[in-house]
This record gives sequence, structure tokens and C-alpha cells, in this order.
Amino acid sequence: MDYLFKNATVVTMDRDNPVLYNVNLYVNGRKIAKISDASGEGETAVSRVIDCTHKIIMPGLYNCHTHAAMVLFRGYGNDLNLEVLLFNYIFPAERNWTPELIKSATSLAIAEQIGSGTIAFADMYFHMDKVAEAADEAGVLANVSNAVIAFDPDSYKYTESSEYRQTMNVIERWHKHGDGRIKADASIHAVYTSFPDTWKQVIEVTHEHKLGMHVHLSETKIEHEGCLEKFGKTPAAMFAEHGVFDVPTLAAHGVWLTEDDMSILAQKNVSLAHNPLSNLKLASGLAPVTQMLKHGINVCMGTDGVSSNNSHDMFEELKMASLLQKYITNDPTVLPAYQTLEAATVNGAIALGRSQESGKIKEGCDADLLLIDTNNPRHIVCHDPVLALAYSASGRDVDLTMVRGKILYENGEYLTIDTERAMYEVRKAKMTPAK
Amino acid sequence: MDYLFKNATVVTMDRDNPVLYNVNLYVNGRKIAKISDASGEGETAVSRVIDCTHKIIMPGLYNCHTHAAMVLFRGYGNDLNLEVLLFNYIFPAERNWTPELIKSATSLAIAEQIGSGTIAFADMYFHMDKVAEAADEAGVLANVSNAVIAFDPDSYKYTESSEYRQTMNVIERWHKHGDGRIKADASIHAVYTSFPDTWKQVIEVTHEHKLGMHVHLSETKIEHEGCLEKFGKTPAAMFAEHGVFDVPTLAAHGVWLTEDDMSILAQKNVSLAHNPLSNLKLASGLAPVTQMLKHGINVCMGTDGVSSNNSHDMFEELKMASLLQKYITNDPTVLPAYQTLEAATVNGAIALGRSQESGKIKEGCDADLLLIDTNNPRHIVCHDPVLALAYSASGRDVDLTMVRGKILYENGEYLTIDTERAMYEVRKAKMTPAK
Repeated sequence: MDYLFKNATVVTMDRDNPVLYNVNLYVNGRKIAKISDASGEGETAVSRVIDCTHKIIMPGLYNCHTHAAMVLFRGYGNDLNLEVLLFNYIFPAERNWTPELIKSATSLAIAEQIGSGTIAFADMYFHMDKVAEAADEAGVLANVSNAVIAFDPDSYKYTESSEYRQTMNVIERWHKHGDGRIKADASIHAVYTSFPDTWKQVIEVTHEHKLGMHVHLSETKIEHEGCLEKFGKTPAAMFAEHGVFDVPTLAAHGVWLTEDDMSILAQKNVSLAHNPLSNLKLASGLAPVTQMLKHGINVCMGTDGVSSNNSHDMFEELKMASLLQKYITNDPTVLPAYQTLEAATVNGAIALGRSQESGKIKEGCDADLLLIDTNNPRHIVCHDPVLALAYSASGRDVDLTMVRGKILYENGEYLTIDTERAMYEVRKAKMTPAK
Repeated sequence: MDYLFKNATVVTMDRDNPVLYNVNLYVNGRKIAKISDASGEGETAVSRVIDCTHKIIMPGLYNCHTHAAMVLFRGYGNDLNLEVLLFNYIFPAERNWTPELIKSATSLAIAEQIGSGTIAFADMYFHMDKVAEAADEAGVLANVSNAVIAFDPDSYKYTESSEYRQTMNVIERWHKHGDGRIKADASIHAVYTSFPDTWKQVIEVTHEHKLGMHVHLSETKIEHEGCLEKFGKTPAAMFAEHGVFDVPTLAAHGVWLTEDDMSILAQKNVSLAHNPLSNLKLASGLAPVTQMLKHGINVCMGTDGVSSNNSHDMFEELKMASLLQKYITNDPTVLPAYQTLEAATVNGAIALGRSQESGKIKEGCDADLLLIDTNNPRHIVCHDPVLALAYSASGRDVDLTMVRGKILYENGEYLTIDTERAMYEVRKAKMTPAK
């Protein structure tokens, strides 16, 4: 065996047996090989023993919606209306991004993520071959997609577009790379940034290559009501009608979803990535997560890009998700700790097509796990490990992040990413454009 | 001189000159002695030079409402209705707290606070002499108050109560101790937990000893509407009418304040401690901070006790305060970064009666400051130090916490608190009662 995590408390996220106390957890190669009572029989020989007294093992977090390279926009044009942010700040600057800059920025976003407990992310941006490359080098799980934006349906042919070329490039070089660690998805950016004719072309390619689909859905009131006005249907109804949801779909936001929309998403097995901090910061609204869960929708969590957050710390995101649902429903018992953690782990693994091997701490599953330190003033008194993870933990408490049995981050050290070099590259780029 | 912080970016929280780049900041004894251009003339000799490249100096944070020792209830009875939490969990357990346990718990709460950038706190609980002792030993600024709760006005005499005895004890031993580092306040717990006759007795003592007053105000709808029903007036109107606000008052929450209430608070110079996470978690509601600020109320920030948060990280609190106001007003431009930081620093110093010497980074002010590290993936790209502090920073990024020129925390080390011993004491107490 490679690792023994000794005397651990384990929050398994397996409803059959959610919390294990005082166990030994063995990792062999990529897998969680054995979980046994620590007070039981002797130990199996291993390469390294990690003492877990006062520590909690949990599954790694899934960040199901981000635009990782937007760390380039951290603290750039904030406290502004979305239109001002996009047209005066983001769009003019993005024109200057080189593929290499996107890669360095993505590497730093991944470092931020593994350093705060995220092991998998669903990324929608451009130059996605570079995003895949950064994710592959870092050793994380990533679903990457090049978003289609096409305002003129007559002149746009998907198969002649740069998005298509980039997607094909990613499929060729990266899809299912590393035994599925990297996956290519298709992406229709949103209902208001392209037309049904274009969607049809994208869906064809998606079916052909058996990809997933990543979209924005009813993020803002303007988007939602604009669609109703233009087509007489909601964004969810439009996508469903045009076959978008006939491929495995991950939809981000869903702030303005109607009850009918939620029925559609549940029926079509669309996963919904909830991004509360971004939604609040842009004053987009607050997604009706409690109703979504009642409809049986697979609700997962995301940070969105840090231009509207401004952090990739999923612990912050999941804590606030729970607190906000209590507030909006006027009921402190809704979205309790365990269910919130499920959204950020198990449900994320489902959304990214990885639930067969990941998202839980269980014998036979991949060793995609975190070690959380509670032996400090931030966690005293730790009455309940589930509550500790949901409401007191932050990225700061992550001692160790492991993906498929490989340690990617430990005690402040990024073991697979040269963060100094990436920071140097990003700083050198002087990429702040004039406003 | 004792310290030179070299080549620093300083977010001063002084509106005349909010951000300084590339300066040298000298600390001499208790004071910020000099701030000068780092590229200017030579350096003055000092005992220790701290390089601040890629680091930000800011004023320490003020946590203006907490019940520090309630770290004993972290993750205990969560996701429940407030009544269930109080009557089945909190109240039965509190009976068992010894003064020494309160002290150990408070020391850990202070460690958590200085380890995440908080230098001052306003605490309302019991055995406050032990809270004062813990704060004094730790070297932080603290305003401590023993809350009066008296359900039977006929049998209750304040001057014969344990709250009075404890308050007198604190006044005698701790008030203005350490040249004002520790202060005693009076406290009427809330409008629903005592009666006007009792308030009168407390106010007399408050005037006599020139104390401040710490109250809960319109935290829940039940409290607010119950008061209206019982007295025909809001809690704020009741307190104002009975002279409570004629002493310098710090009121916590204010979730249900009316416009008239806000006028009263503004006119009476009542400071309002906003505790958004606790208010959300207990489904109490969301305070109308944007309107409060329009009324000219001194809005400061607090975490509340960790039984309803479950963290003392003020960076989390202030970030969410801003995002929540954007959400509730449907306007992403309200409560921008700088104003939010003001609430957590300058306004806190005003609320705790410390604004003459603290709350800003300025020559002649006390060296009550933090050093924030931005040379890491969580802060790349740091386009704007103010936005970095408000939206990307967390307690994790605090390299160093200094109060009155003394370093209390640095790089994970608590220099004035024996956290190992305090954790041992708290764990030994086995204080988890049967539910």
C-alpha cells in the first residue's frame, strides 16, 4: 500500500454510513483500498503513514462552474453594473490574452483550488487546450469547454468557427486523457448569445463525440425575461425544445428558473451548478435551491470566475449556499450541513460524469480526498465533523489534497504546479489594459 | 524605532489618502511613528525590518458583537429553529460553565480572532471578569459586558443581581485597564428579556460609571413585532423613550428596524453592529444596511457567537455584508469595497469608543494593524488592494497581527496565548451535555 491515514474521522458522503470514527484508511495506487477500525487488528505495511488525530478525511470538492483564467480579472472593475464590467473592462482586455497567458493563469487558479480543497472543475472559457494542459500537469480532474457565442446566425457555421476548431483540438489531444482525468465538453454559452440554428450544429457534434454540454441558464432577470419576450418561452424551455438537454447537461446559475423549468431540468437529468457568491455580487439574484432539490434536480456548486466572486474557495461557497437558503425560505432547518456537502461533492461528481469512481470515501473509489485539520482555534469545539466541514471550515484548513492517490497539495506546498513561475509569467504580461 | 515595515502598500482607511504605495511604515512603542516614501531618503535604524513586498498593511478588524466563549457551542445543535437551539441545547449546557472554562474558551476565541485579523471585540456574555482577563493576557482590545436578563420585574433589583456584582467586579479590576485596552460596558440583553424598570436601574449605574451600553435590537421578527404588540412601540422607540440611548450605545443586529427606528439611531448616535452570517443562519433576516448608511448610522460589523455562524473570521463577514446588500437592493454598486472595510475598521473603532487612537493607519495612531500577504494564488492578479481586502482576502492571508505595537500573531503562531493548553482545558471539560 502507498498510504495509511491513521486514526481518522471520515465524512464519507455515503448516506449508508456517513461518518466513521477512528478508522484507518489505506490508499493503494489510485484507489481507496481499505477502510478498517483503527482499534482492530494490526496495520498493513505502507510507504507512508499520516496521523489523522483531530483531522477529518472527506471527498475532494467539485467546482462545477468556473472560468479559471479569469483570475486575470481578480479585483478588476468591481462594484459595477454587469454591462459596464463586461463592455468596459472584460471584453477589451480578453482580446489581448495569449494562449500561454491563459495557461499560466489557469495553473494559478488550479493552485488556488487544490490549496482550498477543490479536486475537479468544470471550466468554460477559450484556448481550452491550454486549460486542459494546465489541468493535466496539475493532476486534477477537469471538464473543459469552449463556449459558442454567435450573434449573427446567418454568417455563423459552427464547424467553421474557432470554437469548433479549439473543441476538436481538445478532443483530439485531451478527451479522456489520463484515463478520463481530462474531459472535453461542448458549450453553448447561453440562450441569448446564439440562436437555435447554431445550437443544432453544436448538438450534432456533441452527439457524434459523446460529449457533455455546459451552458449558462437563466442567470439574470434580463436574460430570462428577454428570452420570454423574444421566443415566448423561458431559456430552459427553449433549450429543452431544441434538444440541448438531450445530451448530459450541466447548467450554471438557474437563478430565475420557474417551477416548470425545474420540472424540465429534473426530467432531463440536467445538473444545476449553483454559484451564490457570484449571483449576489452581480446582483443577479438568488437561485431557488430548496425548490430545485424538491424537484429532484442534481444541484451542484460552483464559484464562477473570480472576476465576480473573487475567490475559488468552495468552502465559502457551500457555507453561504446553506445560509442563504435558510434566509430566503425563512427556515433555519433547510439545506442542512450534510446536504450542502453533498452538493459540493457527490452531486458534483454526478454532474461531471465521474460518480462511478469519485465523490465519496469508499473502498474501491478513487482516492480523491482531503485531509482537514481541526486541531486549531478555528475548530474548537468540534462537536460534529459534518457541521465543522459545512460551517467552520475554509480552504485554510486543508492540510492535504489528493487526486487518484497522488498528493497535489500539502501544508501550503503545491507539489505539481510551479506557482512562482506562473506568478512571474502573469505579472510579466502586464495585462492590465486601459479602462 | 521598533519596527520598519518596508516597501508596503497601505490601505489606510483614511479618506483623505486611502491607499499608499511603496512606503516605509515605522512603529515606535505603541504608535505608528512615521510613514514615508520608500524610494525617498535613507532609513531610520530599527530593531526589526519586515519586508512588505506584495503585502498590504491595513488597520486591524473590529468585531463589534460576539459571545466569545460560545466557541464551546461550535457545531452544537445547528440547522434547528432558534427556540429549539436555545432551550434544548444552549441554556441547559450554559448552566455547567465554570469561570475557568469561560476563560479558556474565550482565549481560544481570541486566538481565532487575532489569527484572522481581528484586534478588538465587543463581548456580551457572563463571567466577564474572566473574559477581561483572557483579553488582557492576549493583548487585544476588548469591551466586555454582562448582559442583564430579568423576566420578573417585581422581584429583580439590578444592584442585588449577579450581573451587577460581575459588572462592578469588572469595573473595579479591568475598566480602563492597560491604558484603556480593556473597557467595561453595561448591557441590557434585549427589549424582550427585561422591563423598563430594570433598564432604569441599569442606566443609572451606566451614567454613574460613564460606561457604554451593549444591547440586542430588533434581531428577529418575533422580537420586533412582539414589542410592538406589547408596548405599541418598536424596540428602538422603547429604548430611546426610556433613556437607554442616552448613553453611548452599541446595538447588535437591527434586522427589522423601520425607517423611523433608523432616524432614532442616527439622532442618538447609536452604533449598529451588523452580523449577516448569524442573521442568515438563524433565518432572522437581512439588515437594511444600505438604508442605515443613508440615515448616517455608524454601521460596524460583528460575527455574533459561533454557535450561529460558526466562525470568527471577520473577512468572511465583511465580504458577505457587501454581497448581500448588492443582492437585496438589486444594485451591484452599493456597499462597495471601501465602505465595507470602513464598517469593519473605522466604524468599529467609533462604536467601541476607540476612534481617537485606532481604526486607521496614520502617523500618531496606535499601531493596530495587519499585514496581509497577496503573494499567492489566492490573490493573483491583485489589481486593486482595496478590492483584494474586501473580496479575496480571508483570515488565512493574515501574516501578522499587531496591537499597540506588539505582535500578537505571526505566520500561524499565537505569541500571547497558550492555545495548546486552552484546547487541552476545553477538551478535558467534556462539556457536551445530553441533548
